[in-house]
Amino acid sequence: MKDKKTALVISAHSADFVWRCGGAIALHADKGYDVTVVCLSYGERGESAKLWKQQGMTLDRVKTERRKESENAAQALGVADIQFFDLGDYPLELDREAKYRLVDVIRSVQPDFMMSHSRFDPYNTDHMYATQIALEARMIAQAWGHNPGEKVLGAPQLYLFEPHQTERMNWKPDVFLDISSVWEKKKAAIECMQGQEHLWHYYTNVAENRGNHFRRNSGGMAGGRAATHAEGFESVFPRTVDEL
Amino acid sequence: MKDKKTALVISAHSADFVWRCGGAIALHADKGYDVTVVCLSYGERGESAKLWKQQGMTLDRVKTERRKESENAAQALGVADIQFFDLGDYPLELDREAKYRLVDVIRSVQPDFMMSHSRFDPYNTDHMYATQIALEARMIAQAWGHNPGEKVLGAPQLYLFEPHQTERMNWKPDVFLDISSVWEKKKAAIECMQGQEHLWHYYTNVAENRGNHFRRNSGGMAGGRAATHAEGFESVFPRTVDEL
Amino acid sequence: MKDKKTALVISAHSADFVWRCGGAIALHADKGYDVTVVCLSYGERGESAKLWKQQGMTLDRVKTERRKESENAAQALGVADIQFFDLGDYPLELDREAKYRLVDVIRSVQPDFMMSHSRFDPYNTDHMYATQIALEARMIAQAWGHNPGEKVLGAPQLYLFEPHQTERMNWKPDVFLDISSVWEKKKAAIECMQGQEHLWHYYTNVAENRGNHFRRNSGGMAGGRAATHAEGFESVFPRTVDEL
Amino acid sequence: MKDKKTALVISAHSADFVWRCGGAIALHADKGYDVTVVCLSYGERGESAKLWKQQGMTLDRVKTERRKESENAAQALGVADIQFFDLGDYPLELDREAKYRLVDVIRSVQPDFMMSHSRFDPYNTDHMYATQIALEARMIAQAWGHNPGEKVLGAPQLYLFEPHQTERMNWKPDVFLDISSVWEKKKAAIECMQGQEHLWHYYTNVAENRGNHFRRNSGGMAGGRAATHAEGFESVFPRTVDEL
Amino acid sequence: MKDKKTALVISAHSADFVWRCGGAIALHADKGYDVTVVCLSYGERGESAKLWKQQGMTLDRVKTERRKESENAAQALGVADIQFFDLGDYPLELDREAKYRLVDVIRSVQPDFMMSHSRFDPYNTDHMYATQIALEARMIAQAWGHNPGEKVLGAPQLYLFEPHQTERMNWKPDVFLDISSVWEKKKAAIECMQGQEHLWHYYTNVAENRGNHFRRNSGGMAGGRAATHAEGFESVFPRTVDEL
Amino acid sequence: MKDKKTALVISAHSADFVWRCGGAIALHADKGYDVTVVCLSYGERGESAKLWKQQGMTLDRVKTERRKESENAAQALGVADIQFFDLGDYPLELDREAKYRLVDVIRSVQPDFMMSHSRFDPYNTDHMYATQIALEARMIAQAWGHNPGEKVLGAPQLYLFEPHQTERMNWKPDVFLDISSVWEKKKAAIECMQGQEHLWHYYTNVAENRGNHFRRNSGGMAGGRAATHAEGFESVFPRTVDEL
Repeated sequence: MKDKKTALVISAHSADFVWRCGGAIALHADKGYDVTVVCLSYGERGESAKLWKQQGMTLDRVKTERRKESENAAQALGVADIQFFDLGDYPLELDREAKYRLVDVIRSVQPDFMMSHSRFDPYNTDHMYATQIALEARMIAQAWGHNPGEKVLGAPQLYLFEPHQTERMNWKPDVFLDISSVWEKKKAAIECMQGQEHLWHYYTNVAENRGNHFRRNSGGMAGGRAATHAEGFESVFPRTVDEL
Repeated sequence: MKDKKTALVISAHSADFVWRCGGAIALHADKGYDVTVVCLSYGERGESAKLWKQQGMTLDRVKTERRKESENAAQALGVADIQFFDLGDYPLELDREAKYRLVDVIRSVQPDFMMSHSRFDPYNTDHMYATQIALEARMIAQAWGHNPGEKVLGAPQLYLFEPHQTERMNWKPDVFLDISSVWEKKKAAIECMQGQEHLWHYYTNVAENRGNHFRRNSGGMAGGRAATHAEGFESVFPRTVDEL
Repeated sequence: MKDKKTALVISAHSADFVWRCGGAIALHADKGYDVTVVCLSYGERGESAKLWKQQGMTLDRVKTERRKESENAAQALGVADIQFFDLGDYPLELDREAKYRLVDVIRSVQPDFMMSHSRFDPYNTDHMYATQIALEARMIAQAWGHNPGEKVLGAPQLYLFEPHQTERMNWKPDVFLDISSVWEKKKAAIECMQGQEHLWHYYTNVAENRGNHFRRNSGGMAGGRAATHAEGFESVFPRTVDEL
Repeated sequence: MKDKKTALVISAHSADFVWRCGGAIALHADKGYDVTVVCLSYGERGESAKLWKQQGMTLDRVKTERRKESENAAQALGVADIQFFDLGDYPLELDREAKYRLVDVIRSVQPDFMMSHSRFDPYNTDHMYATQIALEARMIAQAWGHNPGEKVLGAPQLYLFEPHQTERMNWKPDVFLDISSVWEKKKAAIECMQGQEHLWHYYTNVAENRGNHFRRNSGGMAGGRAATHAEGFESVFPRTVDEL
Repeated sequence: MKDKKTALVISAHSADFVWRCGGAIALHADKGYDVTVVCLSYGERGESAKLWKQQGMTLDRVKTERRKESENAAQALGVADIQFFDLGDYPLELDREAKYRLVDVIRSVQPDFMMSHSRFDPYNTDHMYATQIALEARMIAQAWGHNPGEKVLGAPQLYLFEPHQTERMNWKPDVFLDISSVWEKKKAAIECMQGQEHLWHYYTNVAENRGNHFRRNSGGMAGGRAATHAEGFESVFPRTVDEL
Repeated sequence: MKDKKTALVISAHSADFVWRCGGAIALHADKGYDVTVVCLSYGERGESAKLWKQQGMTLDRVKTERRKESENAAQALGVADIQFFDLGDYPLELDREAKYRLVDVIRSVQPDFMMSHSRFDPYNTDHMYATQIALEARMIAQAWGHNPGEKVLGAPQLYLFEPHQTERMNWKPDVFLDISSVWEKKKAAIECMQGQEHLWHYYTNVAENRGNHFRRNSGGMAGGRAATHAEGFESVFPRTVDEL
């Protein structure tokens, strides 16, 4: 029996978790959750343009830089554990061994909820691949015949965090989370991402406008609760409740 | 400031609320909610075949019978208030006055959540029309310029309850509610519907299988919480939360 | 034969055109288009909360205020003609006469393109109703037998401008318009909307982030043309072109 | 108990049934069905451009011409009964009386199957309105309380025939009907439509290519039954069968 | 030329065919079809929780048990041939050799129709993978250049049988099959599945409620043919017919 | 800096580019584009039935014939470069090396636009696989860390060309291209495909009817520009424009 609440974020590249669910991480860390982040790759080839524009850059140096940034961001957010699978990006691919490694993490964490990318992303096929793998690994983790004797997984929700151009990704949020109280932490984490400074302002705007959506959905056109920042998520599975 | 929690069900015909959300009504009544049900029509022309097969039946007698059944069912469920708008069915139509009457109820109830039909129903256009009206009336009730001075509506969720053939109605439940504790009440209410006995067994099966879905979604393939009966709902609006 | 290019915006309430396509209006005005805006209502009941919170407010005063704001915004944007149909809001309804009045405007303007709301909007049924009417009026305007002898309409595109919560409205932009050069005009128009100040910052963020989408789609992940602000639109009809 | 098989086509304008299901009509007439066609309008305003381009044309003359063409086409196809409701087009609208008149026809015909337009059509809102009415009238015809004592309708399939630009109308055929044996009759009916000669070649191509689809779906890539012409339909309701 | 009608079921795990299309199998066996079932895996790791909870269980023993249950069920249903590919589950994966083995079966059987899982299943990625493979193998079996000289496949329908939570799988049945006459056989087959007793009652309810859908779709709200049990299927391909 | 405009077509089998975008190729070649075509396979196993029906046919002879036909067609269309990857078909599969080879071509061509198949195709899984690979390769080509020092790709549109049965493939064209001026070239290319003569007439009909759609969308019901032939495409990405 685990004694703490836990959550698990599966991030295709090592910066995704910051932009897309940094607020959720910080908020749940504040609430006492142990949040684990798995970075399947560093995004070293496809999401490190700024580094590659420097003279004499090497793959190893890019990975080192990216890892450092992500560790800093994770610390700013209060992440309990960040793991780098270093599987390569553009394209990201998991063989059976890598899938089982992810299953091991899931079983070890026994998350109360999981997070990953949108189900469709024509701009970035690594993202949608990560979600496909997340579903597959969740299923394997539930199998009594996979490493019999280990504690099998229950049925944690899989939340899909916000992709870059939501409408083109067929992503439809069904829950908004108030991250006002931890916005400064998310902001600090965002600012750890020195290589993608062009996205700082963008994701600040996203958080503010999702705050507007929070207000609107919590209280009508001109009212609602005074959230200043929020994050949106799409649930893959139905909820089970005792009161609506 | 209202002192009790409240809910409002908008039912196209006078029996719909029983099959589709009787459990939710009974459960929330048990929890102290005042639940109001508005029956826009009696379903007197289109959903009373058994009565019409009797000799010498008249429209008035059908309405009287249907009303009686619904009142009995409402009582079995613990409904706080049931209102019959008697607008006629097959087809159901609301003029501006009838819409405003519905807005008056919404404002008076100030529901914490609302319920109505699926958004599409090729078998029964009254059902989808009722939902269209529910959205329109909800919007009017939020308008500061409609009967200025009255308390305007906030942003209650609109839950769409389960239609008859879910897949053909494009209805996709995102929340399952455990109604095990009130199943006997829902069963009693169902058995008030003497005119539609052919549906008793059907909706018992639905409740049991939704119970299975509850168990599956609350705990994986062979586990989960031991709900025996459940109801499913589709939310029209996103939720706003402080914890996932 | 008309001697100028023209465009027509059909706005459910008198402020919608500002937030949703103010940039497109100003840009095309700059390019020499005569842009006509039809406001089907003032949004006097449903979108004027701030006014209604004042002591002794009346419907007429609200309409007057709303009209003034819209006229100021239209002037800031370089609108050639703004017409107020004053049909009432929450709910908005058009009888046959009102539809024909809209057809008259369409035929008189002979727009190179038209604009209206998203096709679905559960928060605001007036919005989706306006689009339904726009399609119907466009069709009537094309009919040779409607007021025979008048010049019939060709096949102008109908662009659906950005709704408030895009993903819940099933709105999917397929074109981004660079409005950087006219942003100051849109900003000025937005600031004419004294009654809805809570939306100023929101739509500034939208314009900035759509600028990011413009850059991304015009040149890849870290490049593209240096648009600072943009607007997105969904096309109802296919384009016909001579070169891809 | 009716002694013949019957079918009912609900056509928004008086020519629609020819292009879209003329083959199905002729084929089933050949098989002994009594096929009834209801033309809700003549398409006199919106689909008679060629007539309106003539000098001194009047609405009455257009209607007379359109009626003559449709009657000729109906005869060529072997239609048992064609009824002109003359409700006006662009826009088409049915009040309660007109709906009941349509219900009367449905009940009188007791069709084994019904046909109407696609559910969505941004080019022609009359078309999608006709389908909405077809569903509503079908429902009323099933109501035991509508004109009690009359024979109520069973559950005939509603087939949606092929619209002009299928992909933009979200129309997805699930059944192809071999009309090779009656193609000459459909061709003859098409050629009755003097006012829309620009469409003759178009719908010949459609029939040939749907023939290809018939061959492909009946026997693989280079085989299948040698249909030369076919029509496609989308079913609104599931089928009930004893063998797959 | 084959002398009997045939059908082929592709089942991801060895029990799927029982719950999801046992009635269709028994019914068509009764009609003289030779029905072949291919079980791609035993579901030994992921769908055998009850066995794994026993002391000292091994993978081989699980497989043996699962095989025995499936063979018994197959016999109860009148399956002509059941083949176990033993490819492993959670996750199920087919290399090229395994795909070709499946193609060999398809070509050997020359099925009049095929069956497999729903196209989407976030709970069980093996299921959707099996359908993807079914489509791929069907295509290869149609290729004249695959093992030239063998009889190529025609164009059999692929029916998708009912998944566990239909609405979340985007599964939409378009045909209901009356299995009343073989319900006892399906019941007997279900009761062979000792390891998944928790599903017996569930799939009995499903069969009864699909019986209701059969009645409703074959004859209106309170009538229709008196089917007591039915199964639903979604067709991947359009039908080709001579009469509607 | 490249000195010519360029385009790249990714064709699963060696004939696909002819039927589906031959007009676009010829038109853009006429406008001075260098158009490159990559044929991932010859369609030697699955799309060469006519050849395989000949006595003593071998895989090599089929490939040789198919290549000859495609080269002839490419010449008729004015293709600048046609490359045969010879990866095998039914099923088509790309390993990492093959993907990188495709990326090399993309980077070398630096296309102003790309073309490939529809996203879904239950008849032909090679087609949808090709599109998945096109998206993946486009993404890799944009990565600064893939072969650092090479010129990275911008953000060219990916147009999905017309599949065989559009509605079943969920393909929805949003742009029609007038190919009237090059129709004779496309016709000549089509007639190079000796092995698939059954498709010549089919794709002539398609081109004529898309011409009708061009006319309709460029000018209303009975007008528009006098295109005789057209091709339709679905855009994967939004456009970025300076004028609507």
